[in-house]
Amino acid sequence: PETKLPKVGTTIFTVMSQLAAEHGAVNLGQGFPDFPVPARLVDALSRAMQAGHNQYSPMTGIPALRQAIADKTGRCYGWKPDVDAEITVTSGATEAIFNAIHAVVRAGEEVIVLDPCYDCYEPAIELAGATAVHVPLDPATFAPDWDAVRAAITPKTRLLMVNSPHNPSGAMFGAADMQALIGLLRGTDILLLSDEVYEHIVFDGARHESALLYPELRERAFVISSFGKTYHCTGWKVGYCIAPPALSAEFRKVHQYNVFCTFNPAQHAFAEMIAQEPEHYETLGAFYQEKRDSFRAQLLKTKLKPLPVPGGYFQLVDYSAVSDLDDLAFARWLTEEHGVTGIPLSPFYAKPPAGQRLLRLCFAKSDETVNRAIERLSKL
Amino acid sequence: PETKLPKVGTTIFTVMSQLAAEHGAVNLGQGFPDFPVPARLVDALSRAMQAGHNQYSPMTGIPALRQAIADKTGRCYGWKPDVDAEITVTSGATEAIFNAIHAVVRAGEEVIVLDPCYDCYEPAIELAGATAVHVPLDPATFAPDWDAVRAAITPKTRLLMVNSPHNPSGAMFGAADMQALIGLLRGTDILLLSDEVYEHIVFDGARHESALLYPELRERAFVISSFGKTYHCTGWKVGYCIAPPALSAEFRKVHQYNVFCTFNPAQHAFAEMIAQEPEHYETLGAFYQEKRDSFRAQLLKTKLKPLPVPGGYFQLVDYSAVSDLDDLAFARWLTEEHGVTGIPLSPFYAKPPAGQRLLRLCFAKSDETVNRAIERLSKL
Ligand SMILES: CSCCC(=O)C(=O)O
Ligand SMILES: CSCCC(=O)C(=O)O
Repeated sequence: PETKLPKVGTTIFTVMSQLAAEHGAVNLGQGFPDFPVPARLVDALSRAMQAGHNQYSPMTGIPALRQAIADKTGRCYGWKPDVDAEITVTSGATEAIFNAIHAVVRAGEEVIVLDPCYDCYEPAIELAGATAVHVPLDPATFAPDWDAVRAAITPKTRLLMVNSPHNPSGAMFGAADMQALIGLLRGTDILLLSDEVYEHIVFDGARHESALLYPELRERAFVISSFGKTYHCTGWKVGYCIAPPALSAEFRKVHQYNVFCTFNPAQHAFAEMIAQEPEHYETLGAFYQEKRDSFRAQLLKTKLKPLPVPGGYFQLVDYSAVSDLDDLAFARWLTEEHGVTGIPLSPFYAKPPAGQRLLRLCFAKSDETVNRAIERLSKL
Repeated sequence: PETKLPKVGTTIFTVMSQLAAEHGAVNLGQGFPDFPVPARLVDALSRAMQAGHNQYSPMTGIPALRQAIADKTGRCYGWKPDVDAEITVTSGATEAIFNAIHAVVRAGEEVIVLDPCYDCYEPAIELAGATAVHVPLDPATFAPDWDAVRAAITPKTRLLMVNSPHNPSGAMFGAADMQALIGLLRGTDILLLSDEVYEHIVFDGARHESALLYPELRERAFVISSFGKTYHCTGWKVGYCIAPPALSAEFRKVHQYNVFCTFNPAQHAFAEMIAQEPEHYETLGAFYQEKRDSFRAQLLKTKLKPLPVPGGYFQLVDYSAVSDLDDLAFARWLTEEHGVTGIPLSPFYAKPPAGQRLLRLCFAKSDETVNRAIERLSKL
């Protein structure tokens, strides 16, 4: 029989990382930092192994980490999830997204996603036998058009997936978006999946509009985050899902038989780190804002036009002054001819906007990496 | 809407581990060692973090680990899988089993499983919209009845799942089983999932009949193993799947959007460990055989009757001389009243054999733990 996922090829992140490696390009593509993990975290993980935390953790995650997540959530959003019934530790946010979809979406149902969106959403929806219904964000501002979302709702709609700060654009929901979202879902039994992995990387004093801030949202939401982006260790693959008890129960049924539990020593390390350095969350925005500002300042030396970046660690640039290639071809050309790798946006869309000339560049990099990239980009 | 997985409750492993903790019982239930991970492995992992291997690994696993797995497979089974096209590193064998099922099994199809079997098989099959068809193993010897398996095949059969050395019984396939299996699948397009996580824990000079030894099987098989049991670190959650290129391609489509990749520093640690201590695989059987023999010798002091254990790290005991309770009730009673926890077999069955009085005890434990358990069991 033919393949179950005919549309799925190799993810663009792998494609571009491989191409970057082949051409010795500066890799501003796949979203990962190239500077060290906090030494305390590495040390805590080593000690956890030495202390013997090397066997299966509880399926939902070790209690100390769930407690740390609850405390941290309480501090950040003024509401504390239940440690036992509402928090599940996962092998990264990706597993959490996959589990949430498989926990509640049935064959034949529909899931609304806002394009552009992270490329793991649709395959997971398809694998559940459901259909992704794509509603485009504004092509200039990446703001949601809530009327268009409302118009996309049908009796089959089971889940709406949102993501703020947004990958790839960095756009963030405002308070008005949250009110629109609340209004939209009120009286329906549509569930919400809120992908908030960049929750702590927000700039210019903006407030991250977590779904957890709003009782009307969190009562029907899977709120998903991860430590990879927050602690500069995307390869550690520890994430979590906060959801009301009934949804967590369904979520855990999938998690239990999907990976069962997550690398145990890292759970101990994060529990210790969060408890001992709670201020990390407050300082992370400033840390990345400096990187953003310095990157944008240097981009002025190039022909690439930076778009605004309210949050996250990606800078979109308009390259129309440089090339008329489509974004896939441009990303390839830039890697091969100029030794800089970014991520084209079209793989984030069911139907990429015609003539869009945008590339995503990751600024979660050391100054040295950024400088090397800028040196090359200024030759365009 | 009601739950998608109505039959799924908390897995018996979690239930019994929690009960053991509540009652301060000696926990011979959930299968995990209580002795240390090899120091070299812990050290290698710490060094991998220090060396900066903390970001996303390649989706399929780091090349050095895939190479080590290929080399090790070549040494053990005289056949070497392709490093790039046939090996995928996963977040434990559980994720690999889940991926394999979701990669190829469609809604409405059937998957044959041999009861008793590991309790993650059926929920994963159900989540894929398929049906598990249960064929019982011999209730006394846990040998497969291949004629019964053949009789269970229908035009809808997509996958057959096997497991040797077998959890919970420790039974192992012999050469005749492999020939029967080959004959059974020949001329069909039924795929094979061979769960071989206990591949290196075999006793009395027996040979592990890996599906990888037989070209007719490996050309249609997902062969799944894990480092958790082999290196005493069940909480590290690093496993892998070996499958022919076309099946690996489908497998990876699921893996890519399920967890994407596995905790990176551990991949480096295992790559180093396998390369530097290849003899570990040859000595592991003897290490566990000593534990098995000592446990069985001590069980003679009790009223529990040990069944044969050809492989794995579980001892089945017949408790009918002690109690007439069913196995769920007996396991609970033994924990509460005598402070020793085992795993009842009925959760491993769609339809547990009437009157079966067996309990599974894990002997992957330090002498001290075993001695404490025996002391308590001898009071029965
Ligand atoms: C799993 S690779 C993708 C990493 C990421 O979050 C991104 O680059 O968008
Ligand atoms: C994932 S908990 C189960 C561990 C195990 O392999 C067993 O006890 O059978």
